[in-house]
Parts: sequence; structure tokens; C-alpha cells
Amino acid sequence: MPGETTLYALPQDAIPRQWYNLAADLPTPMLPPLGPDGQPVEAHHLAAIFPDNIIAQEMSQERWIDIPEEVLDILTRWRPTPLRRARALERLLKTPAKIYYKDESVSPAGSHKPNTAVPQVWYNRQAGITHLTTETGAGQWGSSLAYACALLGLDCRVFMVKVSFEQKPFRKTLMELWGGSCIASPSMETASGRAILAHDPDCPGSLGIAISEAVEAALADRSGKTRYCLGSVLNHVMLHQSIIGLEAQRQLGQAGVAQPDVVIGCAGGGSNFAGIAFPFLREKIGGANIRIVPVEPLSCPTLTRAPFVYDHGDQARMTPLMPMHSLGSNYIPSSIHAGGLRYHGMSPLVSQALVEGLLEPAAHDQLQCYEAALRWARSEGTVPAPETSHAIAQVIVEAERAREEGVERNILFCYSGHGMMDLVGYRKYLNGELHGGGMSDDDLAQTKAALAGHPPAAERHSGRWR
Amino acid sequence: MPGETTLYALPQDAIPRQWYNLAADLPTPMLPPLGPDGQPVEAHHLAAIFPDNIIAQEMSQERWIDIPEEVLDILTRWRPTPLRRARALERLLKTPAKIYYKDESVSPAGSHKPNTAVPQVWYNRQAGITHLTTETGAGQWGSSLAYACALLGLDCRVFMVKVSFEQKPFRKTLMELWGGSCIASPSMETASGRAILAHDPDCPGSLGIAISEAVEAALADRSGKTRYCLGSVLNHVMLHQSIIGLEAQRQLGQAGVAQPDVVIGCAGGGSNFAGIAFPFLREKIGGANIRIVPVEPLSCPTLTRAPFVYDHGDQARMTPLMPMHSLGSNYIPSSIHAGGLRYHGMSPLVSQALVEGLLEPAAHDQLQCYEAALRWARSEGTVPAPETSHAIAQVIVEAERAREEGVERNILFCYSGHGMMDLVGYRKYLNGELHGGGMSDDDLAQTKAALAGHPPAAERHSGRWR
Repeated sequence: MPGETTLYALPQDAIPRQWYNLAADLPTPMLPPLGPDGQPVEAHHLAAIFPDNIIAQEMSQERWIDIPEEVLDILTRWRPTPLRRARALERLLKTPAKIYYKDESVSPAGSHKPNTAVPQVWYNRQAGITHLTTETGAGQWGSSLAYACALLGLDCRVFMVKVSFEQKPFRKTLMELWGGSCIASPSMETASGRAILAHDPDCPGSLGIAISEAVEAALADRSGKTRYCLGSVLNHVMLHQSIIGLEAQRQLGQAGVAQPDVVIGCAGGGSNFAGIAFPFLREKIGGANIRIVPVEPLSCPTLTRAPFVYDHGDQARMTPLMPMHSLGSNYIPSSIHAGGLRYHGMSPLVSQALVEGLLEPAAHDQLQCYEAALRWARSEGTVPAPETSHAIAQVIVEAERAREEGVERNILFCYSGHGMMDLVGYRKYLNGELHGGGMSDDDLAQTKAALAGHPPAAERHSGRWR
Repeated sequence: MPGETTLYALPQDAIPRQWYNLAADLPTPMLPPLGPDGQPVEAHHLAAIFPDNIIAQEMSQERWIDIPEEVLDILTRWRPTPLRRARALERLLKTPAKIYYKDESVSPAGSHKPNTAVPQVWYNRQAGITHLTTETGAGQWGSSLAYACALLGLDCRVFMVKVSFEQKPFRKTLMELWGGSCIASPSMETASGRAILAHDPDCPGSLGIAISEAVEAALADRSGKTRYCLGSVLNHVMLHQSIIGLEAQRQLGQAGVAQPDVVIGCAGGGSNFAGIAFPFLREKIGGANIRIVPVEPLSCPTLTRAPFVYDHGDQARMTPLMPMHSLGSNYIPSSIHAGGLRYHGMSPLVSQALVEGLLEPAAHDQLQCYEAALRWARSEGTVPAPETSHAIAQVIVEAERAREEGVERNILFCYSGHGMMDLVGYRKYLNGELHGGGMSDDDLAQTKAALAGHPPAAERHSGRWR
């Protein structure tokens, strides 16, 4: 407003020119992923799935990695994204805290996902790849990859979990609008899909099955021109998302904030959280007093309740074993509307940061998150994605704590996406039809039992087992 | 991008402090609206529907009108909006033209509508009003008014055309999320609604019926605390939207463009078109060589084919007679997806500008507009509203003409809204299920016959009758 600044903008030419790689600064080196033989995976093992330039980023220990000019070119269509101050929410909560948020909802697909879709497609094109496959759950990632492929001229095939495909037909339309194709999974297009359908023609699908199909489809093209993409979890995805926090550091400087007191992001596979948090984790490792809080749903409490183990990234166990906090690749969380947070595992980099004692994870139930979203919509005026509402629920907890303690605190969070395509969930919430979610102690015990045979990555930090 | 600027931003404190009123600069004074007795309507006739401060704006001849500080306060949550350059579309079209667009899709409701919803609610609150009623077709306006009411603490009731209410349930959810209520029209809540339902229980509703119900609901509150709001057509709405063009003038200056060669906006009731165009119309009246092009659907060709007459704003004939280009208040355009362009009349200010010879209107069919939207989505990367795609279709015509003529021209248009909640129409277009729309000569002849008895506002400029 004229009297009260609420926007901290950076000009296009102030966009960061390098990504930040947390792996270079973690106190303990990252554990390697393991192959089926229990031995560390080497670069050439991954070459059929990912191009060499992406594999090099996945394994890099370099602190700073240059962003290609042509990638910057596309990112600056919506980046640098605004840093905003939520003054109306502050007034509503009567808190002395100052609430800043990085608005990633302004991207063409409506979330942070294009930050990594664009470079992934670009690196594949550099490597001579012409066709990409991926899987998607609720559709945010699939549509972001279709967007990037439209702009860079690659063919894009997305395997979408069938139950979501049927519940959210608009996401398919969006992918097709951008020239991509979207296939309900399990499908007749792959051997793994056909095998499942032969056994269970009405199978609703799962992310694990969709990953299997997308990987199989990439491997099936003998021309060598097809590869697979993943929208979260992996190191190179966290790298690409670091641009969020790097911009936020500069913008907080504009706002006169030397460093935030608390940094908050919702965490499913971990990518928007890593994006906002990792540059501040670097400051924390360097001695700064910053609390860093990933927020997850109570129905999928990877960071707050799951052990740190070697586990597969997919249900079909086609991926290497990765060192991460995991509820087990067979765990199916209750069907909350924050589909982007329903992942059994967690980014190995985020997991390792927790193991190092650098994070203070929190978990909230679905009803508390919708209530927080409603308070946000009626004060700040925008409609957050159900995933983002988890971060907002924690922001409210922190702001109320600041009020009780009478302390002026600077809170920063990632507004990861808008909810304009997620109104079905809001409808059910307003109708009183939703449950809170949450994982029972029995389920947790079963999960731990199922993971008992997995290589105990956690032994290095035995205190983290619960 | 680093090398090529595509964004022209203004800081929050550079927001215009005054609106521009075209009525002060039109070569001929505006004709007055007429009451049922054929006499000019006076302010006190409108006092039961609108508060005095709004009526004063509606009738004002002042060139500049101050924007209240508290309104600026809310507008700066998303304003100034970005001016962007569509370099990817320019490359696709191989045109020497430079295409600039004012991005109104960044507002919380996704279009230009909140620009007038916020001041309308604010002025009503100043006048002691606590409850507002309105009608909405596709839901853009109703949700924008609910948004503004949420922020300013007024109660909001929206009568939504029943067929849209059932086809677009998400818009109702959005209104309720912002604390408003949304009623399918015709409803049992008003005498006019009950009368229609008694006669036809399955009546799908119309904008005309919804206006009648909203006006009746406002008049029914004997406490005097309820008033009615309209989202387009009227002079005060055009005034509030002028902020679009005023910002664009400054931003074009940043881009080194002294004046645009062509200014384009889609036109239904006329408000986003007026918003981008009126400040440039002022330059044109002052002698500048600028072509100004409103774009409408062939199915509702108000500016390109309809006479300039005195006609009612609603089907039920509850409003005064207004001097405007009109297809007759009983005309029902074919059901194209650009619901915001399906209005039988046109803003009197826009109509008068056409009468003065200041505008060069164009019309396109629905299929051409969807094709234009697809080219936009696959080059620029964002998904336009179906209404906005009409402006884009004309931009492509102008850019291709510039290429054929080998002339570097500066084109400016209003990107009035995003299409993230309009994917049903895109789905049908991709499936090949849509028709082009268009009004037959027979329908046009019938329209003119039906309007023959209306007061001939057009006599002043007889050459405009067709």
C-alpha cells in the first residue's frame, strides 16, 4: 500500500545466476544410493534413465552451479517471484511477528514445480533427448513438465494415477493444452501396466505404479532419445529449487531483515521446502540462529515419526535404495487433499539435514490446515493450495507464540502454490465432509516392522530412531 | 530474461492516485439515462439502489477523481500489475511488431474485476451500508465482490444464473471461501424468482432474471443498510478500471515507447476494454495517432453490428433506459464459453466513443479465439481466459498485418484474466466439440425490428445506424 510496503520485488536482471547445492555444506557427507546388489550406485547405472548432465548434478559436491542462460531466459518470465508481507494476517492474529512469504504461485502452472521442470527439459535437450516421460499424482508436476516441453520443443508423456486422472480432469486438459499427452495409470501401454490390469481391471493406480510405467516407457525407446524426469526428492531437483531461497535472501535485505528467525515450508518429497530453506540452512550451518521448520501432514509423518533407512523411491522397487526418512514404499497415506504431500519417503538431502539436527519438523492435521487456509483467504485474500495450507498452519502457530511471548519475530515461508484448481477439497471442507487424517500408532508400528530388514542408514545417528 | 527485458514493473508507491474519467474529454457530452417516463434520471431516483457517493461518480464530469487511501491500500496487494512483452509470440509470428500486454490475471480473483469491486464495496461502507447484493453469470464478478467484501467486512449475496451455478460449482465455492453466499437464480428468495419458478420450475435462469432478483433483494431490506452492485457497463465502473491504462502509460514509457500504435481489449459490458483504452483515448482526442480496437464475439456483435439506441440494461426492464449499442435486452447470444462477453448491451461511454468515430471494433468467432489461445499457451506459456482470447485473436491479426506490411508497430493489449477455472471450454475445443458461434442476418434483422420503438439516441449520429 502507499503507506505500508507489502511487496519486495527484484528486477529481472537481479535473478540469481547460480543454484546452491547444500551437499557441499552438510557437516557429514551424504550417504550414496545403493543398487540391488547393496553396492553404491555409479553414474553409468543411471544413464538409461537420466542424461549425463543431470546425473552429474545429482552427484555433484560443488557448492554453486551455473544456471544456463537459456534457462534463465524462461525462468524470468515469472521470476524473480515476489516476496510479500502478510500484514492483514498479522493484524488478524494481533501478533508482533512480521510474516514474509515467497510467492511461488505466480508461475504459469501455479506452483514452484516449473523451477525444476525448465532446467530438466533443457538439460535433456542439450543431451539430444527429444522425448520425456514422467508420472504425476494430482497433476501439478505433470502439467509443469508439459509446460516446459511446450516452450523447449520436446515431446512429453505423463502417466497420471488413475483415480486422480478421473477426479481431476482439468489437469489432463492443462497438459494437453501445452501439447503433452496424459495417460491414466495403470495403462495398456506398458508391460507393468498390462500385468496389473490383467490381475485387477479396476485398479485405481498409485504413484508407485505410475513411476514404474514412466520408467519402463523411457527404457522402451531403443533410439536412445527418450528419458525419464522426476519432480521432487532427488538432489538435482532440490538444487534447482534453491533459487527460491536465494531470491528471498536478497528480498529480506530490501525489507531490512538481516536474517529471518524462522523459515517454514510444507514438505512432501521436499522440493519447495528445500528451495526456501537450503540457502538459510547454509547460514545456520555457518552459525546463524535460525529455526528451520518443514511441515507435513499427520497422515504422512515422514520427518516427525518415520525412521531414517535405505528405502526405494517407488512402490515397485525399480529405483535404487535411497538414504531417507521413510514410512516404507508400500505405505499408502489416507487420501487427504494435499496430494503433493502424500509421499512415503523424503528427499535424502532434507533427511540428512534432519539427521544432522538442523531441522525442527512439525505436522498438522488436514482440518487445522483448511481452517488456516480460510483465515488466510479472508484476510490476505488469496486461495492457497492444500499443500501450502500446511505451511500457513505452522505460520499461525509461530505468530501466536510470538504474541504470547511478546517478541517481534521475522517469519519467512514458502507460498508454494495457489488453490484455484483445488476447490473440490475446499468444497468438502465447507460442507463438513472432511476428516483430519492422521496415522495410527498401529500403522506406524507396522511400517517400522516392514522396514526392519532395510539397510540401517540410521545407525550413524541412532538417536533419531523412535 | 537476462538479455531481453520482458517485464516492466512499477513499485507499489507509483500506483496512480487518481482515476481518469473519459466523460470529461468526449467531444460531445454524454446523453443522460432515461426513466420510465422518458425523462432524464436524476440522482435521487437511484438512491434506493446505489449510495450517494457512487451516484456522484456515475454522473461526474470531473476529469480526475481521487482514489481513497484505503482503496489504494488493498489495490496495491496486486497492483501495479505487470506490463509484459510477448517476445515468444512475436518470434512465433515472425512479426516486426512489439507486443505488450497489461497482465490483469495476477489479481486474487484472476481478472480485472477486483479493480472496481474494492472501491464499490469501500464507498458503500463509507455510506453506512453493511449488506450488498449482485448478480453474476459465469462467476468472475460475483467472486470478486465476495473477495472485496471479505476484506472490508461487508455481507455479500450473489444471485448466480442457475445454469452456470450448476455447470461451474467451483465459482460458488470461491465465493463461500471468501465468506459470501451464492444463490442459484431464479430462487425462492425473491418475489420475481418465485413468480418465474411457479410458472417454470426448471427455468435455467438468465442474467436479466438474476439482476431483477439482486435489485429486489437490495430494495427489500427496509433498514436501508443494503445496496446493489454492478460489475460492468456503468460509468463509475469504467472510471475504476482506468487504473489499468494509466499504469500502462507509465510502463510503456519505461519500455521506451512514447505511444502505442494499436490498443486492444475484449469487450462484453466494456470494463476491461475501457480500463486499458480510455487513457489512450484521451491522447487520441488530443491528436495522437492511435488505433483503438475493442474486440467482441461474432455471436454478440454489439459494437460491430448493433444500433445505438436507448435500451434497458436488464431483461426484466428494471433499470433506466441507457444510450448504448444494443442487440435488445431480450437477445440471448449463443452459449459460447466467453461468458463475460455475452451481454446484449455495451457501456454507454464505450458506445459514445464509437459514435464519435474514435474506435475500430472487430469481431471474431469462438474457434478462431481458441486457436489463438492455444498458440499463446504454447509460446508465452500461460492460459488465457476465453474472454481474453478474443483480444489475443486480434493481436495476432495486427501482428501478421505488421509483418506483411514490414512495419515495426507497438501493440498494447489487456490480458484481462487467466483461464485456470475455464478449462471445460478448452477440453471441448481440444475434443472438436465447439462451434464458431456467430449471429445470423435473420437474428440481426429481428433485433433491429424489436428495437424500432426505442428512443433513437442514434439520431444524433445517423450515419452509425446499419
